[in-house]
Amino acid sequence: MSEQNSNIEVMRHSLAHIMAAAIQHIWPNAKFGVGPAIDNGFYYDIDLGNKTISEEDFLSIEDEMRAIIKANQPFERLEMSIDEAIDWAKHKQQPYKEELLNDLKRAGTTSVKDLNPEELGTVSSDGSQVETVSFYKNGDFTDLCRGPHLESTGQAGAFKLTKVSGAYWRGNESNKQMQRLYGVAFKNDQDLKKYLQQQEEAINRDHRKIGKEMNLFVFSDLVGSGLPLFTPQGTVLRDSLSDFSEALKKASGFQKVNIPHITKTDLYKVSGHWDKFGDELFLVKSQETSDEFALKPMNCPHHNQIYASVPRSYKDLPVKYYETTTVYRDEKRGELGGLSRVRSITQDDSHVYCRIEQIDEVISEIIEDIKTLYITLGMELEARLSYRDDTDKYLGDAKLWETSQAEIKKQAENSSLKFFEAEGEAAFYGPKIDFMATDAIGRQHQVATVQLDFVQPERFGLEYTKEDGQLDRPVMIHCAMLGSIERFLSVYIEHTAGRFPVWIAPEQLRLLTVNQTETTLDFAKTIETEAKDLGLRIYTDNSNESVGKKIRAAEIAKVPYTVVIGEKELATKEVVPRIRQDMAVVDVPITIGISEFLKTIANEAKSRVSKTSL
Amino acid sequence: MSEQNSNIEVMRHSLAHIMAAAIQHIWPNAKFGVGPAIDNGFYYDIDLGNKTISEEDFLSIEDEMRAIIKANQPFERLEMSIDEAIDWAKHKQQPYKEELLNDLKRAGTTSVKDLNPEELGTVSSDGSQVETVSFYKNGDFTDLCRGPHLESTGQAGAFKLTKVSGAYWRGNESNKQMQRLYGVAFKNDQDLKKYLQQQEEAINRDHRKIGKEMNLFVFSDLVGSGLPLFTPQGTVLRDSLSDFSEALKKASGFQKVNIPHITKTDLYKVSGHWDKFGDELFLVKSQETSDEFALKPMNCPHHNQIYASVPRSYKDLPVKYYETTTVYRDEKRGELGGLSRVRSITQDDSHVYCRIEQIDEVISEIIEDIKTLYITLGMELEARLSYRDDTDKYLGDAKLWETSQAEIKKQAENSSLKFFEAEGEAAFYGPKIDFMATDAIGRQHQVATVQLDFVQPERFGLEYTKEDGQLDRPVMIHCAMLGSIERFLSVYIEHTAGRFPVWIAPEQLRLLTVNQTETTLDFAKTIETEAKDLGLRIYTDNSNESVGKKIRAAEIAKVPYTVVIGEKELATKEVVPRIRQDMAVVDVPITIGISEFLKTIANEAKSRVSKTSL
Repeated sequence: MSEQNSNIEVMRHSLAHIMAAAIQHIWPNAKFGVGPAIDNGFYYDIDLGNKTISEEDFLSIEDEMRAIIKANQPFERLEMSIDEAIDWAKHKQQPYKEELLNDLKRAGTTSVKDLNPEELGTVSSDGSQVETVSFYKNGDFTDLCRGPHLESTGQAGAFKLTKVSGAYWRGNESNKQMQRLYGVAFKNDQDLKKYLQQQEEAINRDHRKIGKEMNLFVFSDLVGSGLPLFTPQGTVLRDSLSDFSEALKKASGFQKVNIPHITKTDLYKVSGHWDKFGDELFLVKSQETSDEFALKPMNCPHHNQIYASVPRSYKDLPVKYYETTTVYRDEKRGELGGLSRVRSITQDDSHVYCRIEQIDEVISEIIEDIKTLYITLGMELEARLSYRDDTDKYLGDAKLWETSQAEIKKQAENSSLKFFEAEGEAAFYGPKIDFMATDAIGRQHQVATVQLDFVQPERFGLEYTKEDGQLDRPVMIHCAMLGSIERFLSVYIEHTAGRFPVWIAPEQLRLLTVNQTETTLDFAKTIETEAKDLGLRIYTDNSNESVGKKIRAAEIAKVPYTVVIGEKELATKEVVPRIRQDMAVVDVPITIGISEFLKTIANEAKSRVSKTSL
Repeated sequence: MSEQNSNIEVMRHSLAHIMAAAIQHIWPNAKFGVGPAIDNGFYYDIDLGNKTISEEDFLSIEDEMRAIIKANQPFERLEMSIDEAIDWAKHKQQPYKEELLNDLKRAGTTSVKDLNPEELGTVSSDGSQVETVSFYKNGDFTDLCRGPHLESTGQAGAFKLTKVSGAYWRGNESNKQMQRLYGVAFKNDQDLKKYLQQQEEAINRDHRKIGKEMNLFVFSDLVGSGLPLFTPQGTVLRDSLSDFSEALKKASGFQKVNIPHITKTDLYKVSGHWDKFGDELFLVKSQETSDEFALKPMNCPHHNQIYASVPRSYKDLPVKYYETTTVYRDEKRGELGGLSRVRSITQDDSHVYCRIEQIDEVISEIIEDIKTLYITLGMELEARLSYRDDTDKYLGDAKLWETSQAEIKKQAENSSLKFFEAEGEAAFYGPKIDFMATDAIGRQHQVATVQLDFVQPERFGLEYTKEDGQLDRPVMIHCAMLGSIERFLSVYIEHTAGRFPVWIAPEQLRLLTVNQTETTLDFAKTIETEAKDLGLRIYTDNSNESVGKKIRAAEIAKVPYTVVIGEKELATKEVVPRIRQDMAVVDVPITIGISEFLKTIANEAKSRVSKTSL
């Protein structure tokens, strides 16, 4: 944790105390549970008897908190023996604190290690014998607490109470339900405002909401949770993205392969995934044979079987396979939500088998493809180079690790990629590069990944013949550029807020008929045919609504281009295209011949130009 | 069975007697089991004691058979009581016939129905009481036999003994192993020769053999039987075919959708497939939830969920979905072989939801697409129109059946499709059209299928709003044009014998370097880049072999075009393309500029021209 993060956490935790003090002022009989700092803010678990806190109470609590901050009360640290502390809790009628202290006393005679440190976050201890505990006091409010805290309440930053929810004492359903009151807190008003705006924007951009509005994907109770079905519109999105990923791979000399979605579990016993993936594997039962099958949770062992099916020479290397294919992982149902976490995960996966001397060129090529992909998608990239540390949990030759890590760094530098290094973050089977993309509202998402693998070639006995006729092991390089297409779509829909660039938009062009006369409809039909021949996704709104209503409908549908078709257009064969507001289009003139206009859009789509300002 | 088939069966069965007679002449102690007619020929089960028949004996047996045929012995029918017959068998030392007769005698006192009529194929009976049995005699050979037979041996057609294998008496492993001697027989020499040539050609064209030679697909013991993995070469084949199928669908207004490969079994309980598919379903076990999943054995119920996810109006119909996706069926392991029968079955599937009045236009469009597909693939089509009969096993409105069957017939006639009608061959849920394609050596294979479905829309409660605001049920039309892509590939590889047209060929063009100087290699590289930019699949053979050897290697690899690259080509920028022998290419001149040549091939590939004479 950086010093900066640590400072802000101290501030957030101090605000939890300030909030508790404010609550005690308003409801003097309040009993307190625990109140830690969390991401972006803090909470406190409170028992107010019959009183239920609602959002209407937030204002008065915030006002009281501001008064405490204005008073600039110092945070004072006190120490007591456990028995004194228990007496204090009894006297103050704080049964939850008393329970924590009693637990601590019992454990303290042996060790506190077995107690949940989160719950006891307020206790000072050297990890073996507990004799004294610490308290922090500001104004008239004293709380059992490990600290540290701000020097005084006046140092607190900008905050806002955000929500209240039920929370069982110590997370146990058989315990009493308390109220958990949440706040967010930042260094200053500007940061807070930015965060709140981002939150609001994130709600507007929620891919589940947009997915429904634009009819991109659906879930069915009969099919099951975490198993999205993609409508024609959503399928265009998926395919546009994976076609692009595949085109980049193909241009880099990768060859497409095709594998089944199931396998005998033997394959994973050899690969080692059987132990590793365990519970996440979907087991498949044949009713005809005694074979034990599994749904594949990854593709590499299957691809290895293709590599291993014929003898390979050094001249054949690098062998490069790619495939867009769905893997299945039995994610816990509670973790499933929209497309962010699904059980049917489509990967734009690839595997390279190369000589050690080829690692540099392969990595360099892959980095370039990833950069091209994300530049086109309008997302900034940052890479984490994950290396091994000095522990012995890593498999494979140490020298090979050293060379590879140096190569990875060199290629990252050569490509002028924004990156940082992380020791100890490598997989046990090899170093890797993880790519984070920043979306339009500033959130970072882990996306592409490139992983070296020194272990699978060994486990599967993969080989190639060297110049001297001797056999050697290739190195394996895994890479997914979009990662999980479903998860990436959740990110990308929120990144664009559904305002897709032309090359991805499910509907690229909409014709709006001014009237529904035969001539107008025929003319629209002619344009539609011409557009389809150019490969465009076009729709004609020839409903009986007014042109104004049709325009509004096209705006809601976020169609990039809209064209009104009436007598004038029929006479001149020229149109005045309406362009979706976010698109900084400069090269479509105000009035343009219809055929020329269609060709312009088709070219825009073909060259994957992204004219949107997100 | 047609009269013609019946006649040829009589002839084949008579040849079984003639063969037995010949064997008795050569090995007088031969004991006989049963000897029926089968597809294309006949066999007889024989016990020769220690003598093992080998292919070397075929000639002398055939000679003896020809002598019997030349003698033109009449087939005479005799009758005996069962007891007389048993005495005959004892006297003739025919223990197998004796056993059959004894069984018959025991059964005969009650009924012969419980006995296997195949085994007793030689017995005359009225189905209840058996008192007499029939024998047929030709020359000195008499055999227990139900008949009928030819009038005399001279009427036998052309025949050939083909193989001998072990066969347990009465198919029971605990019984003695006999020798089963097989022959093929046809009306005349010409038909026999044609059949034998077809058989030989079929062996040469065996897709498993070609698949190995051309490295198209592999199986892995770790993955399991019936689960092919496709190499880059095989993936080109798959994708070329499915891309074409998809392009036809898209042009006909179908929209691509995407579904997961698993579902809760609830989906199949609603659809009715749960009962129907039973044992063929792969069950999927979640280790995290109690949900009961299955691997999908078909796609329609999933697609129905997309249809049902939003309200539909009559204006939206027909709604047309397509998807190339893999289904899984737990075929018995013994039935799996190459790609003909697999467990991972990729379908170019589609579903139309339409109004009754739209059945005609939808069917007509689908028939046209299927015709285009198979004309391009160089295979002649024949269609079977499958109707209901008068039994009550069919679901759905009788009037709807009548209209639909009439529509199907009308559209088949309009499309000048070669077809025949088959009453009682419809599915229980609707009438259908099955398409049979004839391959290059005259074999018919069932390929495309179009099925109307009156039941699933009902079971899933699918609806649309009519003009008058009332709700109505759409009719569903299933269609797969290639059917199972794996199975179709097995047919298509044998149809082409691996000599794929340019648009499908995994390798379209091979460059052969005369020498490996830098200039030549650079020049080859330039051509390769130019070809790849045109989307061509090209490979350069710059090994140190002689040009002659390189040419032979390209021929074995069945590459459509081969170009030798040396000093002359470098100087003139012209090449002399070698064209694969089977390709009736007329429009590539003897000498052609390299760029022009590349463009010609690219156009040939793009327009899916099939210049091969198969």
